[in-house]
Amino acid sequence: MLTELRITGFGGQGVIRFGYLLGKAASIYDAKQATLTQSFGPEARGSACSAQVVISDERVLYPYVTVPHIVVAMSQEGFAKHGDKVRERGTLVMDEDLVKPDQVKKGLKVFAIPSTRFAEEMGAKIVANIVMFGFFTAVTDMVRPESAKKAIESSFREKLIDLNLKAFDKGYKYGKELLGKTVQAKSETPAGT
Amino acid sequence: MLTELRITGFGGQGVIRFGYLLGKAASIYDAKQATLTQSFGPEARGSACSAQVVISDERVLYPYVTVPHIVVAMSQEGFAKHGDKVRERGTLVMDEDLVKPDQVKKGLKVFAIPSTRFAEEMGAKIVANIVMFGFFTAVTDMVRPESAKKAIESSFREKLIDLNLKAFDKGYKYGKELLGKTVQAKSETPAGT
Repeated sequence: MLTELRITGFGGQGVIRFGYLLGKAASIYDAKQATLTQSFGPEARGSACSAQVVISDERVLYPYVTVPHIVVAMSQEGFAKHGDKVRERGTLVMDEDLVKPDQVKKGLKVFAIPSTRFAEEMGAKIVANIVMFGFFTAVTDMVRPESAKKAIESSFREKLIDLNLKAFDKGYKYGKELLGKTVQAKSETPAGT
Repeated sequence: MLTELRITGFGGQGVIRFGYLLGKAASIYDAKQATLTQSFGPEARGSACSAQVVISDERVLYPYVTVPHIVVAMSQEGFAKHGDKVRERGTLVMDEDLVKPDQVKKGLKVFAIPSTRFAEEMGAKIVANIVMFGFFTAVTDMVRPESAKKAIESSFREKLIDLNLKAFDKGYKYGKELLGKTVQAKSETPAGT
């Protein structure tokens, strides 16, 4: 089992750090292998920013992402560039205030959260990527939440750990509630229809 | 011409960001190709952190770093793990307060700067990686300083750009002075000896 992911946004949002934490959680705290790659194409010009993560049960021989199973979009530009390249029946995770899709490829699972707004409400816009990481962890099965938290604890300076764990929890909780609603909505469908 | 580099330190020092800026400067603002890769081995456990950068005149097909030409060490642990893996006649760039080598592989070019101390003197320890990036740019010929600065300008939030450019200049100036001294010292050697 090998999963290709792309995290995309603009510079300063911490999408590389998102990728780093994800890879670290998967490989160091879950028993998987991971790589984080940044290849600087013309798309890296200006403010666009994108991290490629590969998570696998076995050693990752080819770290470049071709057709990602999961795309995380934290900017409209990132969505425009990569949103339609998600694999069929793949997953799109996005910031619902910053990304306004005209249309989304049919059959994709789409999960949206106002991650930047939540971070601003916490008084720290800079942790929007971590709110998103929490949300991502809740709605995908890529890493265990306890592994994600260990990755955060071992990657931030002491005084920033609490804030980032709080941001993670905010996103995670929102994701679990969203899944709960989805399940509930489904179970409310009258039987037999 | 292909150069393999490893930037190493501990979590929170911004070594991944260093690698990102370096790759961006080389590929977007100089006319080269670059990749940044983070492969999470056991070494990623705990606080160790290491970024692999490949810079090439041609497309980088294999982004993993095997025997780096240049190692940047911002922690003793990073030096201990990677300092002896530098290629013969390669280059070691290090923080002179945080790295105290017992011995350095023979034939290496070694450049040391108190980057963390300089950053602290600027009142912003967090820019130690950028002081180091400036120093690195001065003592190696990997990227043009104007390209490095453009990478900084396009990667930080507006209000952080000035601080980071200042940090870059601090390290760059120190590096150029150091090279000047080296050259001067050499030219003072009496002719014929």
